[in-house]
Amino acid sequence: MSKEPDKKKIEELLASKKRHEDHLTHEDLFQRLKKGDQQALSESITLLESTRKEHQDKAQHLILSCLPHTGKSIRVGITGVPGVGKSSFIEKFGLHLISQGKKVAVLAVDPSSERSGGSILGDKTRMNALSVHENAFIRPSASRGSLGGVARKTRESILLCEAAGFDVILIETVGVGQSETAVHSMTDFFLLLMLSGAGDELQGIKRGIMEMADMILITKADGENVKKSNLARSQYASALHLFPPAENGWSPCVETISSMENRGMDKAWQVIKDFRSLTADNASFVKKREQQQLFWFRETLHEKVLNHFYSQQNIAELIKELENQLITGQLTSYQAADQIIERLNHE
Amino acid sequence: MSKEPDKKKIEELLASKKRHEDHLTHEDLFQRLKKGDQQALSESITLLESTRKEHQDKAQHLILSCLPHTGKSIRVGITGVPGVGKSSFIEKFGLHLISQGKKVAVLAVDPSSERSGGSILGDKTRMNALSVHENAFIRPSASRGSLGGVARKTRESILLCEAAGFDVILIETVGVGQSETAVHSMTDFFLLLMLSGAGDELQGIKRGIMEMADMILITKADGENVKKSNLARSQYASALHLFPPAENGWSPCVETISSMENRGMDKAWQVIKDFRSLTADNASFVKKREQQQLFWFRETLHEKVLNHFYSQQNIAELIKELENQLITGQLTSYQAADQIIERLNHE
Repeated sequence: MSKEPDKKKIEELLASKKRHEDHLTHEDLFQRLKKGDQQALSESITLLESTRKEHQDKAQHLILSCLPHTGKSIRVGITGVPGVGKSSFIEKFGLHLISQGKKVAVLAVDPSSERSGGSILGDKTRMNALSVHENAFIRPSASRGSLGGVARKTRESILLCEAAGFDVILIETVGVGQSETAVHSMTDFFLLLMLSGAGDELQGIKRGIMEMADMILITKADGENVKKSNLARSQYASALHLFPPAENGWSPCVETISSMENRGMDKAWQVIKDFRSLTADNASFVKKREQQQLFWFRETLHEKVLNHFYSQQNIAELIKELENQLITGQLTSYQAADQIIERLNHE
Repeated sequence: MSKEPDKKKIEELLASKKRHEDHLTHEDLFQRLKKGDQQALSESITLLESTRKEHQDKAQHLILSCLPHTGKSIRVGITGVPGVGKSSFIEKFGLHLISQGKKVAVLAVDPSSERSGGSILGDKTRMNALSVHENAFIRPSASRGSLGGVARKTRESILLCEAAGFDVILIETVGVGQSETAVHSMTDFFLLLMLSGAGDELQGIKRGIMEMADMILITKADGENVKKSNLARSQYASALHLFPPAENGWSPCVETISSMENRGMDKAWQVIKDFRSLTADNASFVKKREQQQLFWFRETLHEKVLNHFYSQQNIAELIKELENQLITGQLTSYQAADQIIERLNHE
């Protein structure tokens, strides 16, 4: 008889735990997401960033529920070296978009953020007004994992943001490393921010990025910088003119902006709208998205196949040993690779 | 007793066959290669282009013997759209190099050659004087296989040419597709040929190639084209100036040439020599080669791992089916990839 109250207590506790878990089912999250609940959006992204198997499964079920509600945003990649004014631009540009009736999500791809410490978007205080606005959602980059892993989480976050009703997704990245290529492959429009001086400031920008840009914005075109910015604008415009035209028929353009004076935001947005309209008309918009989807599927698949390969016992030691033999000319690349594959076949 | 002569005949035949096979051992080929025997070089490249297992093994043994004798050439990648004058340039540039006491090998990477029919270097008649010169060796691109496969054969051919004493290796490719990136990753110096007009002629050049160039040569700078070519030269020079400087400290430059008037060949060669001297001094030459070697080893390894994966039974059908489910939103990329990997684990 004395055990009865305990049993009841346990039942109550279990029921409470169950209620809490129900609260976190993917169906519940999905219903809250669809209503634009930002708390649910945050929880969902945390879920897909988790390495725990059950979280990952739940996240994938959630994304699957979201899929019919995705794809309606414009996805804009934004890059530029540290100091170019990315945060200030996103703050002012985001607020401009909101004033046009848009809901704006800001994501980031920065696999280096853990190492470098000073992560982009780590400090929301740089986007004061935007970060507290109800029609804006800002999420820093996942800070762990390979570029492939971080990129996947960002692509999945885009889908969640779209299901939550965000219609402009800005994906920020830094102007170094391979992350631009990843962001370029998950966005509709690629925006490069540049400083007016063509000297030392550019050293951080990787070769090849300029040619990915759909638009270049010369930042900080204010005060004494105006003249220099206009000059830079015409120089970059001439340079872009020398590049071959893109397959989708779009000619990249160069504009100047000032985040300090809040100038040029309307022009920048108009260019993106023109781009969307042109690529919708010639069907390259949808085609590019489908290509991106299949591209990322193959990337995901190949990454998983290679992970599976590298997860074999002692494989790292074997590779290191063969690389040494390679550098010292005791083996050809082909022979070294063959030795590893043979091992694969015998496991 | 009557069987005796037959037996002897058979023995003789076998001995003769054996002699013929000995003639083709990798050791014999290697000895002939080292003496600069072009016939042996041709046979060796044919061997490594063969898909037969025993040929491939022999080729790898041969490369291994060659390794201590490789690496002493300068490897120059050359690209440009069809019609820019690649063959004419290589003819005149190659003869200039020979006049400077060099031995010149010309290779090509063109995985599309089988499809397009009109392969680059398929027609040696365009390099009349060079192709018959004893200090020149010209080999068209392997016409079968993936870019990865064709690229591997070209990298291995470079090693064979070096062992045979060639000290300038020109690797030609067309200005479309992924093949430039492959050639860029196997050469020391990357040369882009451009026409003076900046209009329709450029449409074939892929974005990103201009930023890979260590030198741009404006071709056909002769007759009425001289003025236009000089203008193009200063335009491209300004454009290149806007790019960030390369890690190795080299500033890409632009020159004009005329293959018809045989003008500018010495200047082009001087630039390459300056490049080599600069990158030898700051050690980036050797460092880049080592990076390229490890890069290509990983590429070879990953290609083999993925080939091994795709060679599984019914894998193509499974992937096609999952891709359809992906496009129609019935699966996420992650789920689709997981289903395939699970299958991998259960085989």
